[in-house]
Amino acid sequence: MKNDKMVDQITSMDEDFAKWYTDICTKADLIDYSSVKGCMIIRPYGYAIWENIQANLDARFKALGHENVYMPMFIPESLLQKEKDHVEGFAPEVAWVTHGGSEKLQEKLCVRPTSETLFCEHYANIIRSYRDLPKLYNQWCSVVRWEKTTRPFLRSREFLWQEGHTMHATAEEAVAETVQMLNVYADFHENDLAIPVIKGVKTPSDKFAGAEDTYAIEALMHDGKALQAATSHYFGDGFAKAFDITYTDKENKLVHPHQTSWGCTTRMIGEIIMTHGDNNGLVLPPAIAPIQIVIIPVQQHKEGVLDAANALKDRLAAAGFRVKLDDSDNSPGWKFSEYEMKGVPLRVELGPRDIEGGQCVMVTRHNREKVFVSVDELEKMAAERLEAVRVGLYEKALANREARSYYCTTLDEINAALAEKGDGLVFAMWCGDEECEDKIKEETGVGSRCIPFDQKHLSDTCVCCGKKADKMVCFGKAY
Amino acid sequence: MKNDKMVDQITSMDEDFAKWYTDICTKADLIDYSSVKGCMIIRPYGYAIWENIQANLDARFKALGHENVYMPMFIPESLLQKEKDHVEGFAPEVAWVTHGGSEKLQEKLCVRPTSETLFCEHYANIIRSYRDLPKLYNQWCSVVRWEKTTRPFLRSREFLWQEGHTMHATAEEAVAETVQMLNVYADFHENDLAIPVIKGVKTPSDKFAGAEDTYAIEALMHDGKALQAATSHYFGDGFAKAFDITYTDKENKLVHPHQTSWGCTTRMIGEIIMTHGDNNGLVLPPAIAPIQIVIIPVQQHKEGVLDAANALKDRLAAAGFRVKLDDSDNSPGWKFSEYEMKGVPLRVELGPRDIEGGQCVMVTRHNREKVFVSVDELEKMAAERLEAVRVGLYEKALANREARSYYCTTLDEINAALAEKGDGLVFAMWCGDEECEDKIKEETGVGSRCIPFDQKHLSDTCVCCGKKADKMVCFGKAY
Repeated sequence: MKNDKMVDQITSMDEDFAKWYTDICTKADLIDYSSVKGCMIIRPYGYAIWENIQANLDARFKALGHENVYMPMFIPESLLQKEKDHVEGFAPEVAWVTHGGSEKLQEKLCVRPTSETLFCEHYANIIRSYRDLPKLYNQWCSVVRWEKTTRPFLRSREFLWQEGHTMHATAEEAVAETVQMLNVYADFHENDLAIPVIKGVKTPSDKFAGAEDTYAIEALMHDGKALQAATSHYFGDGFAKAFDITYTDKENKLVHPHQTSWGCTTRMIGEIIMTHGDNNGLVLPPAIAPIQIVIIPVQQHKEGVLDAANALKDRLAAAGFRVKLDDSDNSPGWKFSEYEMKGVPLRVELGPRDIEGGQCVMVTRHNREKVFVSVDELEKMAAERLEAVRVGLYEKALANREARSYYCTTLDEINAALAEKGDGLVFAMWCGDEECEDKIKEETGVGSRCIPFDQKHLSDTCVCCGKKADKMVCFGKAY
Repeated sequence: MKNDKMVDQITSMDEDFAKWYTDICTKADLIDYSSVKGCMIIRPYGYAIWENIQANLDARFKALGHENVYMPMFIPESLLQKEKDHVEGFAPEVAWVTHGGSEKLQEKLCVRPTSETLFCEHYANIIRSYRDLPKLYNQWCSVVRWEKTTRPFLRSREFLWQEGHTMHATAEEAVAETVQMLNVYADFHENDLAIPVIKGVKTPSDKFAGAEDTYAIEALMHDGKALQAATSHYFGDGFAKAFDITYTDKENKLVHPHQTSWGCTTRMIGEIIMTHGDNNGLVLPPAIAPIQIVIIPVQQHKEGVLDAANALKDRLAAAGFRVKLDDSDNSPGWKFSEYEMKGVPLRVELGPRDIEGGQCVMVTRHNREKVFVSVDELEKMAAERLEAVRVGLYEKALANREARSYYCTTLDEINAALAEKGDGLVFAMWCGDEECEDKIKEETGVGSRCIPFDQKHLSDTCVCCGKKADKMVCFGKAY
């Protein structure tokens, strides 16, 4: 019996990018809305993407000596208040638990928006000597921030993430860890998510609450907006002082350790959608695709077709690919659309004529390129085609970013570039003054994203005030 | 330089079982206490046990077709109230969020104590036709229950767990799923945790709030108390009716699906401690031990010892064992105690004389049995010794349970057995009357744990009232 359900059309991204985005979130079965405003349900297909992201990053973290732990989800108000800048940054956006059962709590508890305070309390208990350092802990959990406006993956009141929290004997070691973890995120993005990123440090106004420095990677979305993809913070010994964390060093002196934290979230799924997706739906990079290869039999009722398709499936699974054979009664055309919507990077088609010719057809999702492949070369060509998707996605994203990167020396140039070529990344020199930063945003609409590690000397003077400037800043519109 | 830290002594289990238990929790570095009453910090070694449990169960669930999802951590009060029995069971012990940032919420939200209501709301959205069934979802997350008295792992206000929630076309299929998942838990316990369990159904007074039937596995701890190790619930279509979940069946009629849920928690770590632990510390079954084999070099300063130890380590790691070489400056004696405290199932000792003789020493944690092994047979013997630990642990636990299983036909017999042989499992016939259940508990101190699937006919009459009885019940003292 044939399923008459049609693959739903989605809004064109050129017509309404925001609507296109939420269409993909729901029609590719990534999420559903719940009755709790701003909290989403991550459906099996969306969660499988997250599981693949987790497995990849977790292995990278562990290879660098990090260990996973689990901290409580609640933070007593007094604990949150221990570090002044931190509480100012987070108190306005936390959810408060005031009652347990029918009793009012003596002290209200916030649901963790981040766990620096909890880790510091624990570190104060367990760090005694230089022998106890470094501590390299990470946690996978959900956190809550009471946002006013929300969008699936990009900004939700509850989201999933990992938060690394490390303690080191010296400032140098802590800074090295901060940079190392930024590089882990960047490498994961560039090589596995096929998303080019800009590594840099945040301007002081944009630092994490309580940090000395915040490093970030920024990615450009298809519509020209910038997305902060991951952050890594260096705290110095500020929290250590506030939480009275000390250790005895090799000279037997009592000193404070130096701290970092670093995190990335389910927001990356939104980033993948907005970087690689197209008007046919999601496009997933092979490294994190729940299904890397879908096999679609053609004229499957004919003798031998399903057997042959199953044989291909078994071979691809044995070779380590995540593969699915769709032998349902839906038409091949319906299946093509369905797995395009779901962003499966590689489709294998197999019909009676292919079987006769000892071949199959491989179609890459991102460019619909069709290749006839001898079944003798199945595994080799599947790997080759998936690699072509990865490289193709990266190149496409990089080309979009390059076409939308504007190097400007005056505010007029910024406005002209944005008006002419649309939203994008603006690179310009900045004097370091927060007033200029604010004024640039006011007059052009783009805010500072980061000071890229990879600096270019565009001019000697600040794009805003004309005073001496030696930093090139990356500006953009944020999500 | 030698670390002078001594491995801390723990309280003897015969002296104070409760203190012995918490000593292991802290001194084997499983947990730390936080400033949030009843919420524990799961430290790297404890969390690594949980990760191994997760990986094992997750693979079992997925092999049976289950998919992971993520639901919001908050439940609006009105949603929790939709199923009458359910809200009565859980409302008294939930934590309530009443404020987001500085604003009072229009409707208070509870932090999920369990997620039936959230899953039902979602299922009402996505189930339309018999083609959409079954839905086999699972979630790994933390939940909160505002307990009055708490103990690490056994009863905490926040704990980690998995909760499976499934929907089926028929009652038969749903019951089969309930039993299937109970069997998964039982198999995991018996084969991987080396803990014998009793499978059974709860008496009506002890069912999960809103369930038609609750199945459970019960394990006997070293001190003779019973521990509910996992549960599996059959809901019928009660929740489906309350949440208006319907589907069109093959005859084109609109009907309600049938539901299950099943879960197990970090409590299992407490169960492992109390089943296998001894006065030297933790004893871990190999399947979930973060370190399965620790290699301890003897006279490691002598030439060639560390090289040889590293060679053993590399071979064991290559063979797939989780292996650690401790080449720190602590003495071998200190290391022996440390890894006994941490419950590492197998210790390999290697000194200059062993190297000369082409051998090493293998010591199994649970019985300190010492075996000299030719290094040619390293991998084979390591596997054999770890299997000996698994079997040995199971047999020891089973022997303890058998010695503490009392088959009784009168209340006097129950009291006599408990007084003479100590706490244990009491098996007795029961008429099915809740009053008798209460009276048995009052007069003997043991409550009903379950009605075992494996029934014995002990007599024709109820152990309490003397009326006709055809059910043998397992009674015990609970944690």
